[in-house]
Amino acid sequence: MLQIALAQMRVVPGRPDRNAETMLRCIAEARAQNADLVIFPEMAIPGYLLGDTWEQTTFLEECEACGEEISAASMGLTVMFGNVAVDRAKKNNDGRVRKYNAFFTAQDGKLVAPDATPYPFVVKTLMPNYREFDDTRHFFSLQKLARELDVAAEDLISPVRFTVRGRTYSVGCLLCEDGWSDDYGLSPMEILCKKERPDFFVNISSSPYTLGKHAKRRRVFSLLAAESGSPLLYVNNVGIQNNGKTVYTFDGANAAYDARGVLRLSGEPYEETTQVFDLETLSDRKPAVIADEPESAHIFRALSYGVRLFLESIGMKRVVIGVSGGVDSAVAAALYARVLPPEDLLLVNMPSVYNSETTKGLARRLAENLGCRYVTIPIQSSVEHTIRQIEDAAIENLFDGAVDRLAVSSFAAENIQARDRSARVLAALAAAFGGGFTCNANKAETAVGYSTLYGDQSGFLSALADLWKYQVYDLARYLNETVYRREVIPQATIDIVPSAELSDAQDVDRGQGDPLRYPYHDYLFRSFIERWQKATPQDILEWYAAGTLEENIGCAPGLVAKYFPTPKDFIDDLERWWNQFSGLAVAKRIQAPPILAISRRAFGFDHREAQNGPYYTKKYKSLKATLLGAQQ
Amino acid sequence: MLQIALAQMRVVPGRPDRNAETMLRCIAEARAQNADLVIFPEMAIPGYLLGDTWEQTTFLEECEACGEEISAASMGLTVMFGNVAVDRAKKNNDGRVRKYNAFFTAQDGKLVAPDATPYPFVVKTLMPNYREFDDTRHFFSLQKLARELDVAAEDLISPVRFTVRGRTYSVGCLLCEDGWSDDYGLSPMEILCKKERPDFFVNISSSPYTLGKHAKRRRVFSLLAAESGSPLLYVNNVGIQNNGKTVYTFDGANAAYDARGVLRLSGEPYEETTQVFDLETLSDRKPAVIADEPESAHIFRALSYGVRLFLESIGMKRVVIGVSGGVDSAVAAALYARVLPPEDLLLVNMPSVYNSETTKGLARRLAENLGCRYVTIPIQSSVEHTIRQIEDAAIENLFDGAVDRLAVSSFAAENIQARDRSARVLAALAAAFGGGFTCNANKAETAVGYSTLYGDQSGFLSALADLWKYQVYDLARYLNETVYRREVIPQATIDIVPSAELSDAQDVDRGQGDPLRYPYHDYLFRSFIERWQKATPQDILEWYAAGTLEENIGCAPGLVAKYFPTPKDFIDDLERWWNQFSGLAVAKRIQAPPILAISRRAFGFDHREAQNGPYYTKKYKSLKATLLGAQQ
Repeated sequence: MLQIALAQMRVVPGRPDRNAETMLRCIAEARAQNADLVIFPEMAIPGYLLGDTWEQTTFLEECEACGEEISAASMGLTVMFGNVAVDRAKKNNDGRVRKYNAFFTAQDGKLVAPDATPYPFVVKTLMPNYREFDDTRHFFSLQKLARELDVAAEDLISPVRFTVRGRTYSVGCLLCEDGWSDDYGLSPMEILCKKERPDFFVNISSSPYTLGKHAKRRRVFSLLAAESGSPLLYVNNVGIQNNGKTVYTFDGANAAYDARGVLRLSGEPYEETTQVFDLETLSDRKPAVIADEPESAHIFRALSYGVRLFLESIGMKRVVIGVSGGVDSAVAAALYARVLPPEDLLLVNMPSVYNSETTKGLARRLAENLGCRYVTIPIQSSVEHTIRQIEDAAIENLFDGAVDRLAVSSFAAENIQARDRSARVLAALAAAFGGGFTCNANKAETAVGYSTLYGDQSGFLSALADLWKYQVYDLARYLNETVYRREVIPQATIDIVPSAELSDAQDVDRGQGDPLRYPYHDYLFRSFIERWQKATPQDILEWYAAGTLEENIGCAPGLVAKYFPTPKDFIDDLERWWNQFSGLAVAKRIQAPPILAISRRAFGFDHREAQNGPYYTKKYKSLKATLLGAQQ
Repeated sequence: MLQIALAQMRVVPGRPDRNAETMLRCIAEARAQNADLVIFPEMAIPGYLLGDTWEQTTFLEECEACGEEISAASMGLTVMFGNVAVDRAKKNNDGRVRKYNAFFTAQDGKLVAPDATPYPFVVKTLMPNYREFDDTRHFFSLQKLARELDVAAEDLISPVRFTVRGRTYSVGCLLCEDGWSDDYGLSPMEILCKKERPDFFVNISSSPYTLGKHAKRRRVFSLLAAESGSPLLYVNNVGIQNNGKTVYTFDGANAAYDARGVLRLSGEPYEETTQVFDLETLSDRKPAVIADEPESAHIFRALSYGVRLFLESIGMKRVVIGVSGGVDSAVAAALYARVLPPEDLLLVNMPSVYNSETTKGLARRLAENLGCRYVTIPIQSSVEHTIRQIEDAAIENLFDGAVDRLAVSSFAAENIQARDRSARVLAALAAAFGGGFTCNANKAETAVGYSTLYGDQSGFLSALADLWKYQVYDLARYLNETVYRREVIPQATIDIVPSAELSDAQDVDRGQGDPLRYPYHDYLFRSFIERWQKATPQDILEWYAAGTLEENIGCAPGLVAKYFPTPKDFIDDLERWWNQFSGLAVAKRIQAPPILAISRRAFGFDHREAQNGPYYTKKYKSLKATLLGAQQ
């Protein structure tokens, strides 16, 4: 009897005007479908990831005004939505005006207050303040409010009741984290159930996509619904939002679980969609089937959506990609070719004397396969000119009148090549083409700064920098086999040894390439970043000594012995990369482009870091001495 | 009778080993001076700004082990210090191991517990979570602990008591923010006083330097001491710490206020110093005199200290600075010349056809005045080569077989020059010289992205990017008049019109320069960033309409009428820069170098932002229509 519309709307962060328009349109559509209740996501009006925009008074007022518009539009039905709520009579702990992450319910043009809060809206109780989240920076929680009012949080957590055609429904209203209460010592759902089991729960969220989160969410919410014995409706937004350094996609994935926890309705990921259903007959529907797809399918969906919306959000219509013949740039090109028409995608190969005919050929073949635009711009003469200019320059010592000359080392010459490609050619070419150029770095390179600042570390977006090298390879195969269903990325590009081709020592035709051994280093670096408690050289060395390293970091067995015949080899490698990871690579990441996040820990605002240099604990040093002593 | 040593120690973030060593040395010195009590800053062992290093188990263990070393070293005296404390039996709200920002007291090798907390240390009660602070991301507050234990915070806030030569002292132990309780609805000092006035208060801090904070701190703490009627000892660290994007200096500024609130002892800013005094005779000392210095003196001290320690922390010994003849690069050069010996500082002028003889001459004169190294490397031929390469390149359309050519616009050519200077010449020159190159952007340019990415927006550190243009000018004069006491920065560099000299339209000899009118734009942009509630175009336009704009943003009266004859001129300018500030400039800041922070709101981790584009509220649009309508 109660017709409910779950609006999986696209929220544009920082655009209350556009979001309110979207909501008004959804309400009109829902009304046309005879919905009694329309539910929008958390922070549907302002968006969620806004940096410190929350400190603009006029922005807060605009959000409030848009909220009032939505409330006014609820004539003849009930609307639930997330918005920021402001109490000008009170302060946040930073001394600024009090702000809540709030859940509003409006019916017939008026707000419907929950049973027992001092406000006509529900206040978010649990505040995520980890990963990319900064909730406690901006919003006052219900727990703090309870303390301020000198009551228990339990006294304030209460259902919202509204009446439709004579029947009154009590709804347990939750905001995102309120449904993930394991670590807070307080469960809003339990508290609500203890008082009087609500007719149903509504969880409105603004929950960024992470690989695997979708499945976990289904497990958790299905269990919560079953335990409570009430249906649970989950409404999340689609779109992209960012924290500057880190760009998140939002997959929506709206869901309706019946009172036994069975998923009966599920929103297509990343689609703007409004699903209407009858609450009374929810459990009569067929269970929703979630396709079991390979990891690459999820990654491809998130990346292509993220890239498309990011381009749209910054108003960029054309893209230049430097293609080397290697796998990273090939995957980037194949990805962008699914997002842009061929005339707006320009691939450029920029050979020096160190680039092999093999890779030059592969770069061109890739462009032919994609049928986009292609150009070759050699860098050799410019690089030689730069080296000559530096070495010929007369450095005057104004303190003693002497004149010095400088020498360009071969390492410095490698970086000159990389910068010549990006900051000189790609940037100028992109400007002339009327677009931007991409950064094609993967997560392993980004982790240890195996890249040149203002060189291959530059670009307007790093679409692959949250993918380990093995995920880039998997994605390359997935693009050929499933997305394009033909070999757009030449097989030789997948098979060739990964190489920067910046010197004679990196000759792909002789099988010489990067110093990174991805099948091991992918997993080593992952343990530094993505592990629940981040691993350090001490952990690594303890696992190495105990023979449990491969198991602990998740790489294939046998690799450690294969790559590192002696403890010294192992330790040299470990220290080399730990020094890079905590040293120069941090400096590079500070100036790196935004990263499209897919993992459970992405560089940037998610994995926050200071430029403090590497640290080795006393236990590490002692174990190292033991292992090296044992060797001699 | 109680001899107290206040250790204004340098804390190296992320280096518990080095910090513990420093502390052991201080304890030995204090013991030699017959001190009974030695006090170290907050987080003296781990450092404070560490990003997510707090998630490394081994790092936490190392800090605990170092803490135990310090406790063990307290034989025969009492030591107070800040450290992280870990409770492995409990969780933080993110599910990770419980961590506290803790205040330890050790005497004769053993910890001295406060009267009434469940731990042998004091837990920080108030958690700053604004600006650059992320306390609640990592640490569990005493308020949360009280809630968990189902007691009032008042029940846990209690003094630490220790006995020296038969007399027992009760000490009110505070961690930094605990002394700044205005906005928290809970004052640890008041609570302590209500129970039983402590013999004295100790506030250990790790408080980053901000222009003006020093004076405010003296006002607040003097008042707190006087109100409580107990002496208050303030111990803060020196050194630098960073959050990646934003680098903070810590000026220490230790202080002892007597029971009437008179400042009796004050640590020299930025000095590593341990001051010993007798508590009983504290109020007999002469009041400490804090010199009244101009703003530039404070800025110079913070910047030169910050630059010196930043270079040291990243192991950089030599620096290259591109000097244009303009004031920003001249101030940067004069600043670095105070930090580095002349043979390690290389100034380089990189003229194109657009650079005047005037500015080329000024650049050289600056280098001569500083007596460092100097070189001229022209960019004209390289820039022409790049433009030719781009325009000559045959773009193959692989979808239709056609070949296209691109044109380089004059705007694109300006950016090519800027990138040629930085990413080609400066980066290669710095590598050959064995050092890094600086970014000389000021805060006004940084605010609106009046800079080129991978061009003048690059470098290893932006030492001036938290200074408005007027502060750069003031600093230029201060350097000449007070630091060098001679004209190292040529007066003509100060007098000349600011210009990027990237095109014919920017001819300094004809008085043509930047589109920024600093005397107004400095203050307009400051209102977007530094105002307590950030200003937006709506605020600006409302003030403009009310005739109160200059007063509200703090610029000189009369400027608005002078620069903008009509409302349309005013609005065009406002929208131009607001679009830049919230648009492309954000993208540039994401990839900008770390900024040395001095203001109350610096770009980076302090002023967090998302790349969401400009927003204009409905009220703004309506007021704009009114103003423009009125004009027609």
